[in-house]
Amino acid sequence: MQNIYFTPGPAALYPTFEKHIKSFIDRQLGSISHRSQQYRDLHRFTVEQLRTLLSIPTTHQVLFLGSASEAWERILLNCVEHESFHLVNGSFSRKFYDYAQALHKFAHIYEKPMGEGFDAAEIEVPAYAELICTTHNETSAGVQMKPADIHKLKNRHPDKLIAVDMVSSAPYPALDFGLVDTAFFSVQKAFGLPAGLGVWIVNEACLAKAERLRQYDSLTIGAHHDLPTLWKNAEKNETPATPNVMSIYLLGKIAEDLNRIGIETIRKETEQKAAILYNTLKNSSVFDPFVTETRHQSQTVVVANTRKDSSVVISNLKGKGMMVGSGYGPYKGKQIRIANFPATSFEQIDTLARALNEV
Amino acid sequence: MQNIYFTPGPAALYPTFEKHIKSFIDRQLGSISHRSQQYRDLHRFTVEQLRTLLSIPTTHQVLFLGSASEAWERILLNCVEHESFHLVNGSFSRKFYDYAQALHKFAHIYEKPMGEGFDAAEIEVPAYAELICTTHNETSAGVQMKPADIHKLKNRHPDKLIAVDMVSSAPYPALDFGLVDTAFFSVQKAFGLPAGLGVWIVNEACLAKAERLRQYDSLTIGAHHDLPTLWKNAEKNETPATPNVMSIYLLGKIAEDLNRIGIETIRKETEQKAAILYNTLKNSSVFDPFVTETRHQSQTVVVANTRKDSSVVISNLKGKGMMVGSGYGPYKGKQIRIANFPATSFEQIDTLARALNEV
Repeated sequence: MQNIYFTPGPAALYPTFEKHIKSFIDRQLGSISHRSQQYRDLHRFTVEQLRTLLSIPTTHQVLFLGSASEAWERILLNCVEHESFHLVNGSFSRKFYDYAQALHKFAHIYEKPMGEGFDAAEIEVPAYAELICTTHNETSAGVQMKPADIHKLKNRHPDKLIAVDMVSSAPYPALDFGLVDTAFFSVQKAFGLPAGLGVWIVNEACLAKAERLRQYDSLTIGAHHDLPTLWKNAEKNETPATPNVMSIYLLGKIAEDLNRIGIETIRKETEQKAAILYNTLKNSSVFDPFVTETRHQSQTVVVANTRKDSSVVISNLKGKGMMVGSGYGPYKGKQIRIANFPATSFEQIDTLARALNEV
Repeated sequence: MQNIYFTPGPAALYPTFEKHIKSFIDRQLGSISHRSQQYRDLHRFTVEQLRTLLSIPTTHQVLFLGSASEAWERILLNCVEHESFHLVNGSFSRKFYDYAQALHKFAHIYEKPMGEGFDAAEIEVPAYAELICTTHNETSAGVQMKPADIHKLKNRHPDKLIAVDMVSSAPYPALDFGLVDTAFFSVQKAFGLPAGLGVWIVNEACLAKAERLRQYDSLTIGAHHDLPTLWKNAEKNETPATPNVMSIYLLGKIAEDLNRIGIETIRKETEQKAAILYNTLKNSSVFDPFVTETRHQSQTVVVANTRKDSSVVISNLKGKGMMVGSGYGPYKGKQIRIANFPATSFEQIDTLARALNEV
């Protein structure tokens, strides 16, 4: 029996994954040179599909990294000389902050407990912060920040760069890249691919900053995957080192599948499926939503408090072939996390909702 | 018609690749949690197979990165406070040196023209160099450095760390890890996998150095994939960020296949196949071996000068379904490069040799 994965990442593989990997193998794409026109065409196709899906303008490049975690480091190295500012409300937004400290940046933090979200109105950005680090979807806590609030921050601070972690939500959030300097995600979440590729979207303002910082003796922008080198190669539809051709190919094919459905439909269906889950939690005697403010409830990773030990709940669902995630960090035994990505159908969500009612 | 790939990387996929990817999909391993026992068992299996294949002792950890290029950066960040020393005789050994400069290390260089190799006896290691950077197989030029010479360098300089780039030769070189502090390779060469994973082998001396450097305010060992964090996670058979589970699984399975054949047989067959190629070149009126010193002739990437424009040769072979690499950098139009990895059979090498005779 095949399990249904509702885990927040690695998540369920997209239904067309197997078909696409078969075509990758049949076409012998695993052996093509990454300096050939054949590769450049493949690379360009994926970038174009992502540009369409996420409305990425030509002011921004689409770059490929080993993971989204690598993006945290590359953004900090290339876009921050002295000071960064971090909105932290969970384990992943905190890691972005931890990375800044490890790189000896002066990292400001505005922190809230897990389960709480940020609104633009309450945020005081430190005067000398060069980069505002936001997390659209905090995977550990199931909290989202509204794109409108992210855009407001940039509107109020046009002199600063703004970064958006959309690891576990892209392509759901309708970001306006006119108001987002850089964003990043990984493919093992909502794109339904195996892990091993990070996507870094980054604009000319970030590039200009990296090119300036590169001249300084007092700091380094890194040697591997520094922004100017990545950008220069991306203009040729290439990468500096041998890329993960298979994942780049699969990402392009799945982005094409999503474009066929249409981003508006995907966003609407995501919200409809999330509503089914949140309603189930609200009407349950065993569960309730961890995030209480409706506007901060993630549409892509739904986190529920469990009144019984969550490991019992997880085993019960596993017995029915449904895999959900455990709570994160201090909430490991007290919560479950449910991914709501495009790979997951209404039918599967209904099946899970019924099973949650029966726990 | 399926082509035969003799390209030096991405190279021909290992014959069992398709079988293993099918089992990966059938077992739904693309969706398993990287914090589960199921993942840890998979991770441990791959590490154990690599330990057997390459005789890696318990003093060394086996770590996973996004690529071998990333390993250059991680080694320099974690193992060099001030000075590194680089043996450079081609594009890839030069990149290791370039990375050191980009990270503001004081990088010493001993350089030879492409096509020439290094012997231990001629090498003067600068007194304050902390790390000696060697390249077992310079992919751009088809030059190898004998493991015995690498070992001699370490024997003469036990106080220094020594790094070995074995990107396009592992598992061929019989390195004695008692005399090698760190080494690295990528999977799209001799392991016959799609690109997207780098393997970093590193010992306790490197870890101790990284832990010391981490205390300093004057430099950073990096935030992503810093050695102490990678090591701590590896002890639990985990990785700090979500790993490339698919590639790690496939690498373990192919390493197991190679262990079934036996490393001695693989090394012997590699040399026998290389001998067929070098003999063909020597007896040809169109080709001759680029590397003239027999002891420096790579056994895994054979580079030939072509008396006619190499693009003609490459097209001719392509017409017969055989893909070889072009020359690198300044030798693009003047050379071809032929990979001789375990995925390539004697029969395929014979077919290529006949075709080379007919060019």
